[in-house]
Amino acid sequence: MVNGHIALYIKWTTLYQLSHCHLSSKSWLLLMLGFRSLLVFLAGFSLFSDEQERFICNTIQPGCSNLCFNVFAPISILRLWLFHLILLLVPHLIFCTYLTHKVLSKPALIPLPPPLLHSERNSPLTLETSPSFHKSALREWTPPRFYCAYVSVVIFRMVLEAAFGVGQFFLFGLAFPKSFLCYEAPCTSGIECYISRPTEKSLMLNFMLAVAAFSIFLSFLDLVSSLKAMVGWRKRQENLLEE
Amino acid sequence: MVNGHIALYIKWTTLYQLSHCHLSSKSWLLLMLGFRSLLVFLAGFSLFSDEQERFICNTIQPGCSNLCFNVFAPISILRLWLFHLILLLVPHLIFCTYLTHKVLSKPALIPLPPPLLHSERNSPLTLETSPSFHKSALREWTPPRFYCAYVSVVIFRMVLEAAFGVGQFFLFGLAFPKSFLCYEAPCTSGIECYISRPTEKSLMLNFMLAVAAFSIFLSFLDLVSSLKAMVGWRKRQENLLEE
Amino acid sequence: MVNGHIALYIKWTTLYQLSHCHLSSKSWLLLMLGFRSLLVFLAGFSLFSDEQERFICNTIQPGCSNLCFNVFAPISILRLWLFHLILLLVPHLIFCTYLTHKVLSKPALIPLPPPLLHSERNSPLTLETSPSFHKSALREWTPPRFYCAYVSVVIFRMVLEAAFGVGQFFLFGLAFPKSFLCYEAPCTSGIECYISRPTEKSLMLNFMLAVAAFSIFLSFLDLVSSLKAMVGWRKRQENLLEE
Amino acid sequence: MVNGHIALYIKWTTLYQLSHCHLSSKSWLLLMLGFRSLLVFLAGFSLFSDEQERFICNTIQPGCSNLCFNVFAPISILRLWLFHLILLLVPHLIFCTYLTHKVLSKPALIPLPPPLLHSERNSPLTLETSPSFHKSALREWTPPRFYCAYVSVVIFRMVLEAAFGVGQFFLFGLAFPKSFLCYEAPCTSGIECYISRPTEKSLMLNFMLAVAAFSIFLSFLDLVSSLKAMVGWRKRQENLLEE
Amino acid sequence: MVNGHIALYIKWTTLYQLSHCHLSSKSWLLLMLGFRSLLVFLAGFSLFSDEQERFICNTIQPGCSNLCFNVFAPISILRLWLFHLILLLVPHLIFCTYLTHKVLSKPALIPLPPPLLHSERNSPLTLETSPSFHKSALREWTPPRFYCAYVSVVIFRMVLEAAFGVGQFFLFGLAFPKSFLCYEAPCTSGIECYISRPTEKSLMLNFMLAVAAFSIFLSFLDLVSSLKAMVGWRKRQENLLEE
Amino acid sequence: MVNGHIALYIKWTTLYQLSHCHLSSKSWLLLMLGFRSLLVFLAGFSLFSDEQERFICNTIQPGCSNLCFNVFAPISILRLWLFHLILLLVPHLIFCTYLTHKVLSKPALIPLPPPLLHSERNSPLTLETSPSFHKSALREWTPPRFYCAYVSVVIFRMVLEAAFGVGQFFLFGLAFPKSFLCYEAPCTSGIECYISRPTEKSLMLNFMLAVAAFSIFLSFLDLVSSLKAMVGWRKRQENLLEE
Repeated sequence: MVNGHIALYIKWTTLYQLSHCHLSSKSWLLLMLGFRSLLVFLAGFSLFSDEQERFICNTIQPGCSNLCFNVFAPISILRLWLFHLILLLVPHLIFCTYLTHKVLSKPALIPLPPPLLHSERNSPLTLETSPSFHKSALREWTPPRFYCAYVSVVIFRMVLEAAFGVGQFFLFGLAFPKSFLCYEAPCTSGIECYISRPTEKSLMLNFMLAVAAFSIFLSFLDLVSSLKAMVGWRKRQENLLEE
Repeated sequence: MVNGHIALYIKWTTLYQLSHCHLSSKSWLLLMLGFRSLLVFLAGFSLFSDEQERFICNTIQPGCSNLCFNVFAPISILRLWLFHLILLLVPHLIFCTYLTHKVLSKPALIPLPPPLLHSERNSPLTLETSPSFHKSALREWTPPRFYCAYVSVVIFRMVLEAAFGVGQFFLFGLAFPKSFLCYEAPCTSGIECYISRPTEKSLMLNFMLAVAAFSIFLSFLDLVSSLKAMVGWRKRQENLLEE
Repeated sequence: MVNGHIALYIKWTTLYQLSHCHLSSKSWLLLMLGFRSLLVFLAGFSLFSDEQERFICNTIQPGCSNLCFNVFAPISILRLWLFHLILLLVPHLIFCTYLTHKVLSKPALIPLPPPLLHSERNSPLTLETSPSFHKSALREWTPPRFYCAYVSVVIFRMVLEAAFGVGQFFLFGLAFPKSFLCYEAPCTSGIECYISRPTEKSLMLNFMLAVAAFSIFLSFLDLVSSLKAMVGWRKRQENLLEE
Repeated sequence: MVNGHIALYIKWTTLYQLSHCHLSSKSWLLLMLGFRSLLVFLAGFSLFSDEQERFICNTIQPGCSNLCFNVFAPISILRLWLFHLILLLVPHLIFCTYLTHKVLSKPALIPLPPPLLHSERNSPLTLETSPSFHKSALREWTPPRFYCAYVSVVIFRMVLEAAFGVGQFFLFGLAFPKSFLCYEAPCTSGIECYISRPTEKSLMLNFMLAVAAFSIFLSFLDLVSSLKAMVGWRKRQENLLEE
Repeated sequence: MVNGHIALYIKWTTLYQLSHCHLSSKSWLLLMLGFRSLLVFLAGFSLFSDEQERFICNTIQPGCSNLCFNVFAPISILRLWLFHLILLLVPHLIFCTYLTHKVLSKPALIPLPPPLLHSERNSPLTLETSPSFHKSALREWTPPRFYCAYVSVVIFRMVLEAAFGVGQFFLFGLAFPKSFLCYEAPCTSGIECYISRPTEKSLMLNFMLAVAAFSIFLSFLDLVSSLKAMVGWRKRQENLLEE
Repeated sequence: MVNGHIALYIKWTTLYQLSHCHLSSKSWLLLMLGFRSLLVFLAGFSLFSDEQERFICNTIQPGCSNLCFNVFAPISILRLWLFHLILLLVPHLIFCTYLTHKVLSKPALIPLPPPLLHSERNSPLTLETSPSFHKSALREWTPPRFYCAYVSVVIFRMVLEAAFGVGQFFLFGLAFPKSFLCYEAPCTSGIECYISRPTEKSLMLNFMLAVAAFSIFLSFLDLVSSLKAMVGWRKRQENLLEE
């Protein structure tokens, strides 16, 4: 009875660990993806929803407003952030799928019967007293290339953040102008267009850049701690093998 | 007690395997359907939602804008993507329904009583020590035409992706033009219409084509690994029968 | 303990079978209702949402656009499809309610105590060794008028599909015209009205007709297999009674 | 162990019975409330959503359209249906709350300890062999005023359906007119207003009346079967007391 | 085993009682909050959503419509109802939080071990035979200041209902006028503004007042029954202590 | 069996305690975040949704309305409240993540085997009779820096509330004006703009300030009680160590 419970416990914690993948990764996910998603969906959507309807150009020539807006914003900053969030989610999903694949493809309940066979009936499960089982289980359960995969995920994430931050800076700069002078071909030269809510949009632009910078900083800390844990785990494994 | 637990475990993993059908298929589903759905629903909907309202034609003749838009876009690219996603979902649903049908129609708990009858009370379930049960269960549990069905699903998927990719290319090409000259019958000749956000729409068009190409590549890898697994399973089964 | 588990198992599978009613029916439900609902809700809603706003008539007389649209489309094709989907759902709900009523009104757990009383404590539940229980349970559990009800549901479904298909054909034909000439009473004679997106709407019209035809074909196969199963069950029951 | 399971079973089925209150009532709820809600929410909302925006009056006097629409439709038919649905839900909720109150206020698990005390350990729960417990439990468990409450709920429901049906008939008649002549005070005499989609709205009006009539018919059948069950239960109880 | 189950049962029923707080309170919550929320969200939102868009003033002076609407409705009746519903929810949440705090802060499972220690192994849990445990548990479990808190909640609720009812009456009276004469400063004197759907809005205004009156009546009944229960509980406790 | 249950109980209550973090914190969260979120989402969104559409300026110069609204409201008060709510949520999430990290990183089920080993089979779990286990478990389970972290969270929260309250006061003052005189560069001097619903917006502005003040007051009480609990816990721990 007790054995069955502990077996289920090991099973569940493993699945739990794998589904949430890694705690520091999870906290990063929570803070960066959750916080940014809330910001983009709650504040960004209502702020940028009327960017084209309220982009008013001082002309009555039909289609000029369309042409000028295309020059002013070749890509919508809101959709760029959404695309960024989707891409940030992808490496984590790949990493978790990879881990689940690794663990579920191995015979997960095979390590349980041995103590049932070797130990007497209803004896307490002595994890410490069966070193052979302990060691092999350890080697079995600890995914060998876990840290390598995780480190590459973190590096990919940092590159992604940096690329999108730089892209945002070159496309939109650090502030939205109050008005924009448009010299697009079929329109008359020098049409002035007025942007809606430039101050609030500039604030959000800079805040999102700051969040990206903070996210790179957190990823860097995550990278360092992962590398430390990797080294520590290798040492521990070597000690176990030497014993 | 322990037997009951393991019985439930086998039951559940089988159902789990079948409901998620296949891991590589699942990862494909996750990446391709999830990623594309997120893209289409979050970015596509807001980008293409005003395609007709902001398709501005340089005419005041009523109905001309309707006629020109019908020539410019006989099918909405957004609805084409949605239809594509729905059709990609269908073979997986058929495949899973077929598998569930196969397994649930067989007496799923019949293999359990034998160890209860043959073994003594509360003896550990020795899956390895009852080879006859093991073999017949193996033959019983492994759906015989599983691989054939799966391979045909993957091939159907590749054909679908290719067909939609080619269709998209012939309907919309690789870029949206900034303006469109319309010669539709009841309007005056040569009305110029202006498309809204052509740059961003062209980018999304090309990105979706690239995703389709990557999806075909992944499906090809999936196909190869499935064929390999099929051959390997046949060999293993032959070895088991020879033993 | 084991008995209790199996009792619960029987209970649950029965409920499962009844709630999902029938596998082939379920696959029909999944394919036809799910697929069509997805199509109508995702593609149909956005395609037909502006059918009246963009139905532009070449007149400035107020109310004429209302009158002409009423003649052009006395019933909205989108709401016809929705009504069709709701009506298709109803016979399945009636059938499932009827089955649940039948089973839950019978004393569902009464068959369980006998093995508990007759067999020794903790002996494996030998369903095969208690033929009297087996037979009566079989007769108890198999709903006697199940097949008749199911066959009538399938026939009702086929009639419904055919009726709506024919109705759609007579109301809208096979294609939406590009323009519509309206001679409604208070308007001036011969007002030309322009339909929005006629090509895409015609495509969807034909596709929905094709889906309805395929659904009738699937229902026919379902009908044939149900009748076969009905005959087979009767034979099996007669064999059991003869034994 | 077995006792505990059956105790939980009795508990749960009672709660189940009470939460769903009564099967025939439930089927009525499903068919009438579910079907009507689907109709009103899916078809009604899109059909009547623009009733005021597309109620076009042949005048440019500001506010006249408001005044005429107020005379044409003092109450929106859509909100009348919603109010009807909410009111139909209320007696069922009151009835279920009343039943749950009745049952939960009684000591629901008190009947369980006696068999635990009187019977030997692990003996099968012989519900038939303890007649005294059986009878008192029966009297305890069958809510005495259940049928009276249910009959009054059904009668209330029928009155409600009839009242709303009659109200709808007097407010809107059986068809929406194509145009409406409005003689409201500050406007010029005889302004013609045009209703949008009159044909489809008339169809829905009549369909909802037919559904109300069918619902009264079903409630009548429910009433008859409830009265029969009431008489049958009284007879059974008298027989039990005489034994 | 049995003990564990009953322990869990006591635990759960207590939590159940506390989470739903009190049955009469719950029925009030269901009827008043549920019914009103449904009314306000389903009927109110669509009725009052265009109160400002269709508040048409007979002037072309820009901004006058804004100024007149501000005088006509300094507070939106819809948002007043929403605020009322939120405030009615708050005392219940405070009361439940307070109760949960009281119960969870006490050592809830401490009373269970004693019977495990004192009674023999596997003896049926005789709640009646251990009077000392029974009494202390009773005193422990019955929250002493429960009734005082509940009575104050009910009184607070009644005051809230009355205050909002009176407020609604002074702000909007019992009917919406068809037109409103506005003498706001920068506009020309005597602008006539027309309200949309005045009849339906007046009906809803009166219906909500009637619901508030009925809610005060129900709260009064609740108050009386709570005071009776309080007196009865005190008497029972005194009897227990005297025994 | 019993041991297993209590072990699970300890496990779950700890997780429960940690996931809900702290009761007083939770009640603050419920009252302040829940109440404010309801207010902002239900009342705020509909009140401020048309702040820019109905900000009507007495000019026909294109773009002037955009420029004036940017001066009138450099930041939307609604998005400021949303941002405030998101930021208030963040310290709680960090605190809970930190606690979960602390507890889950420790070997949570290690304390369970010892009683299984030391005590005889099936003996009742005597938590009181194994003082050594009790003490060490206490020290193990009570997170050492829990109170410090919680106090810093409360202080951070108070600072945040004060900062946003002050910010709101300096940006919007205590009332919205009925009209706003705008002297923005490219427009003609002295354009008058009219705000929609100034009275209701001013009321909401002041109410949100009052809620912020009440929240600071509650946080102060929370801070005091946390510091008291911190001192009390230290004393209790010292007493335990001295025993």
